[in-house]
Amino acid sequence: MAKQILRINMSDLSATYEDVPERWAKWAGRGLTSLIVSDEVDPTCHPLGPNNKLAIAPGWVSGSPAAPSSGRTSFGAKSPLTGGIKEANSGGLSSQKIAKLGLAAIIIEGMPSDGKFYEIFVNKDGVKFEDAAVLLGKGMYETADLMWEKYDNKPAVIGVGPVGERKLSNAGISVNDPENSPGRYAGRGGLGAVMGARGVKVMIVDDKGGPGVEVADMDLFKTGRKKVADAMGEHALTKVEGGLWQFGTNVLMNIINEAGGLPTRNFSAGQFEGAAKISGEAVKENIEIRGGVGKYHHACHPGCIMQCSSIYPNVDGSKFVSVIEYETSWALGANCGIDDLEYIAQATWECNDIGLDTIEAGNAIAIAMDGGHLEFGDSAGALKLFDDIRSGTPIGRVLGQGVEATAKAFGVYRVPTVKGQSMPAYEPRAIKGIGVTYATTVMGADHTAGYTIAPEIAGVGGKVDPLDNTAKGDLSLTFQAATAFIDSSGYCLFIAFPILDIPEGWAGMAESVAGVTGLDITGEKVIDIGKEVLKIERLFNEAAGFTPADDRLPEFMRDEALPPHNVKWDMEDEVLDKVFAWVHD
Amino acid sequence: MAKQILRINMSDLSATYEDVPERWAKWAGRGLTSLIVSDEVDPTCHPLGPNNKLAIAPGWVSGSPAAPSSGRTSFGAKSPLTGGIKEANSGGLSSQKIAKLGLAAIIIEGMPSDGKFYEIFVNKDGVKFEDAAVLLGKGMYETADLMWEKYDNKPAVIGVGPVGERKLSNAGISVNDPENSPGRYAGRGGLGAVMGARGVKVMIVDDKGGPGVEVADMDLFKTGRKKVADAMGEHALTKVEGGLWQFGTNVLMNIINEAGGLPTRNFSAGQFEGAAKISGEAVKENIEIRGGVGKYHHACHPGCIMQCSSIYPNVDGSKFVSVIEYETSWALGANCGIDDLEYIAQATWECNDIGLDTIEAGNAIAIAMDGGHLEFGDSAGALKLFDDIRSGTPIGRVLGQGVEATAKAFGVYRVPTVKGQSMPAYEPRAIKGIGVTYATTVMGADHTAGYTIAPEIAGVGGKVDPLDNTAKGDLSLTFQAATAFIDSSGYCLFIAFPILDIPEGWAGMAESVAGVTGLDITGEKVIDIGKEVLKIERLFNEAAGFTPADDRLPEFMRDEALPPHNVKWDMEDEVLDKVFAWVHD
Repeated sequence: MAKQILRINMSDLSATYEDVPERWAKWAGRGLTSLIVSDEVDPTCHPLGPNNKLAIAPGWVSGSPAAPSSGRTSFGAKSPLTGGIKEANSGGLSSQKIAKLGLAAIIIEGMPSDGKFYEIFVNKDGVKFEDAAVLLGKGMYETADLMWEKYDNKPAVIGVGPVGERKLSNAGISVNDPENSPGRYAGRGGLGAVMGARGVKVMIVDDKGGPGVEVADMDLFKTGRKKVADAMGEHALTKVEGGLWQFGTNVLMNIINEAGGLPTRNFSAGQFEGAAKISGEAVKENIEIRGGVGKYHHACHPGCIMQCSSIYPNVDGSKFVSVIEYETSWALGANCGIDDLEYIAQATWECNDIGLDTIEAGNAIAIAMDGGHLEFGDSAGALKLFDDIRSGTPIGRVLGQGVEATAKAFGVYRVPTVKGQSMPAYEPRAIKGIGVTYATTVMGADHTAGYTIAPEIAGVGGKVDPLDNTAKGDLSLTFQAATAFIDSSGYCLFIAFPILDIPEGWAGMAESVAGVTGLDITGEKVIDIGKEVLKIERLFNEAAGFTPADDRLPEFMRDEALPPHNVKWDMEDEVLDKVFAWVHD
Repeated sequence: MAKQILRINMSDLSATYEDVPERWAKWAGRGLTSLIVSDEVDPTCHPLGPNNKLAIAPGWVSGSPAAPSSGRTSFGAKSPLTGGIKEANSGGLSSQKIAKLGLAAIIIEGMPSDGKFYEIFVNKDGVKFEDAAVLLGKGMYETADLMWEKYDNKPAVIGVGPVGERKLSNAGISVNDPENSPGRYAGRGGLGAVMGARGVKVMIVDDKGGPGVEVADMDLFKTGRKKVADAMGEHALTKVEGGLWQFGTNVLMNIINEAGGLPTRNFSAGQFEGAAKISGEAVKENIEIRGGVGKYHHACHPGCIMQCSSIYPNVDGSKFVSVIEYETSWALGANCGIDDLEYIAQATWECNDIGLDTIEAGNAIAIAMDGGHLEFGDSAGALKLFDDIRSGTPIGRVLGQGVEATAKAFGVYRVPTVKGQSMPAYEPRAIKGIGVTYATTVMGADHTAGYTIAPEIAGVGGKVDPLDNTAKGDLSLTFQAATAFIDSSGYCLFIAFPILDIPEGWAGMAESVAGVTGLDITGEKVIDIGKEVLKIERLFNEAAGFTPADDRLPEFMRDEALPPHNVKWDMEDEVLDKVFAWVHD
């Protein structure tokens, strides 16, 4: 059975199933959501107005029989944070379930004229709408619990917390994991506000009885799948008992700190004296000491090999929060001058519950600290701010929008953003390639858009000097293109670590995609296919009014030297302008 | 004695007098401030960072012997509200005094590294800096009083209120009038935040003993001056006992309401049932009833003929506030659904004291009402918000930034802004030409940038149908160019009313400028000279990253019909894109 598009119109609460248009047929995941947004959303529309749409799509191999670590769901829209096209993707249960219902994508459009919020239930029999008044104001933990009590079959729960209901531009979209923890997030760019503006509090996806995912060439698929799995099982970062399995993404805290690239106290230094106390090693140690339900390796979706997620327990061994990512621990910790892991765990839980992207939330608090609203290091004061964000007080509404809004409210001009989105946990003055990615990706400052950290810090996919500007434009573009492909595949981006180092893995990724789809995709074509996606996104942003002036890091990084290396951002503008020049060739 | 540039560097508290560079020699007023910003400010800099500058310049004829209504001061910088180049000009005492000190312009650059604020005193002997700690947090009424107590000769007082100290993007720059009321404002675009970011609380200008303004050709100047004065004395709008003299700018309230172009309750209707109660006629009636110091004609600077300013008294005849402009009464009144003139007078006083642009302030309150923070019409609730803005509570910091920030905080997508600046008191769906000006001027939505209301509503300079799109692109451009010339001259923009209808007045304006400057300027050259200014500004904005996508009205005006005419904004994008196409010819 051919896949379909499910179109949900919130203006009249209708749902229609459509054949996949020829133009979209090749695509899945990010490639598909970006194409849908490009085709159907006016680039100049207001992101919260009636003409924006939210596109949701599983990847090419999501829901296929046991492709490893392939449970990523792509969400796309025009972003209220950046004003440009935005793709954010998430782990959790949703990708495989949407795929197994035979859906290539779900498009949510329109908005209820009465301002109401709805609960949407999707299964093999169709779509049901229900007034979500009883859920309004509730956090995602309670919401997810209520949905699993109400619906059978442990469905996917895709929803927004109070900040999404308020349409604030740091609202993320929550997806539950196999234990129904709502901590998997399509976090960045305020896509939760787009969902909230459509009047959707929560969407439940139950795949029971669905047609499943057809595999065009099972032999090819199995060949590719095995190569990917073998590479993952072999690589030091992704294998069982490997770096991610033991310490999660927070394995990076001490490494980036050592490299002098850990943004500290609103990007005023590159090393944090308290880094070790909030590192993955510290997390693991506490998990081992506390025991109980604690787990330092945990799968965010069925079939994940590397298991970079964890369950952080309370002192008594009961469940506290899943998961403290590196970027989360950095944003809420180092960048606020806070070295208290228990605060970070609590603040992470608050973000998950309220519906905030942790990176933007932590950075916004750091800006409030820089602006004198509270002191750097004041974890008690910071924790109170989450009550404000939750209940929607004015300061909560400011912080709930993220860094730019907070900086404007406090008159701060040292604002570490690109295209309105705040930088993640890698200082571009000390790690030049990631700065090129921050500057040039349409996504706003985003490490996942082209993770040059791999060769610059981790020695994966080669080894280059992070402090050297040479050839960083090409490096970033290659990573951005590869990422666009992987984000379309449904695979977790972290398969990049093994397949960059192990060529069979790279070929296997392409073969598994070719096997499922029947498309003529080989390892050699990955970069070009990724560039097709990048071009679609880039042209959208140009039509929205973006220019080379938007592809720049903030001026304070050119003016101020970052300790300990005492380096400035000194990349030539011409290098940045060249990264996407090919779009118009 | 040749005019000089006074350059004040706040990083090291130095002041230097420089010869006027050849490239700047021809210019004054807006032409000069825009050229200074274009030459010296990086278009991509942060408006509140160390690399922005504030340029201040009197016009060509300001301070000359008795050119009528010529006391306008131009202020220019990169705007924190729009992100583009910004010129705002003001009446009051400053223009003539700066000119008479022999200064072509004052440039304020740098910022104190210690975050302190300073009081700057400028007279014929030079510049003095004094720590302004004792003035911090004070409103402009008290500040102006303190400065006149401290300094002799009734100097000009140019300053910022608490919102400017906080660097919020709706901070205006206050200038005192002949009675030391601080209600004359270079209000729009947040230039007060730029002044605050330089660490300047107040600048005092005492012209006593200054060299005065040289006149190159006194006969030509006198000829021109007389023609301008005669035209003003003759025209129904500007003569003694004329429309502006009797009712001030608020003569427009009933007229625009009648035309169905009075934006009401956050631009959801074009007529307000309470318009008459907040009109110029109502103001005049109260002034006559209450007596005392009340005056319905009043000069904001020495030598003004039309005297559109007024002094609104309390019931007991004591001074309440000067001046309730049409746009002020509309923004604080009609657009908030408030028909209470006493509230409007009080709110105007608050804006003057706190340092807010009244248009942006009223519109921001209207957005807060639309977002459910308070009810439309709730004048008591609105008044309390000024306490918040004054004291810098979080909601005050949101509102102190203006409309866009308030809309984002409350999730409102019906946002009547262009380039981040909110629309003034003329509904572009019902008055198409002013919509073209809003869309295309670099200044953000701004009626004064190209006041097509003259022919569209007032029948000045011809008569065209406000509801008709035909030829509105050319009309707007002509007005924008003429305005750029007048804003450079030091003349008040309102001389446009008589000189558009009386050709001798137009010629006289050019002759008076030629007489003072010795430049070869005639009436035929006015538009071309104005276009030179527009081109400088336009190219700055392009370098800052502006594109045709920024030259658009908000989409809700395309989607929603405005009562009573039930008209949408239906101007073709091509018309808008053509307005400034000549810049690249």
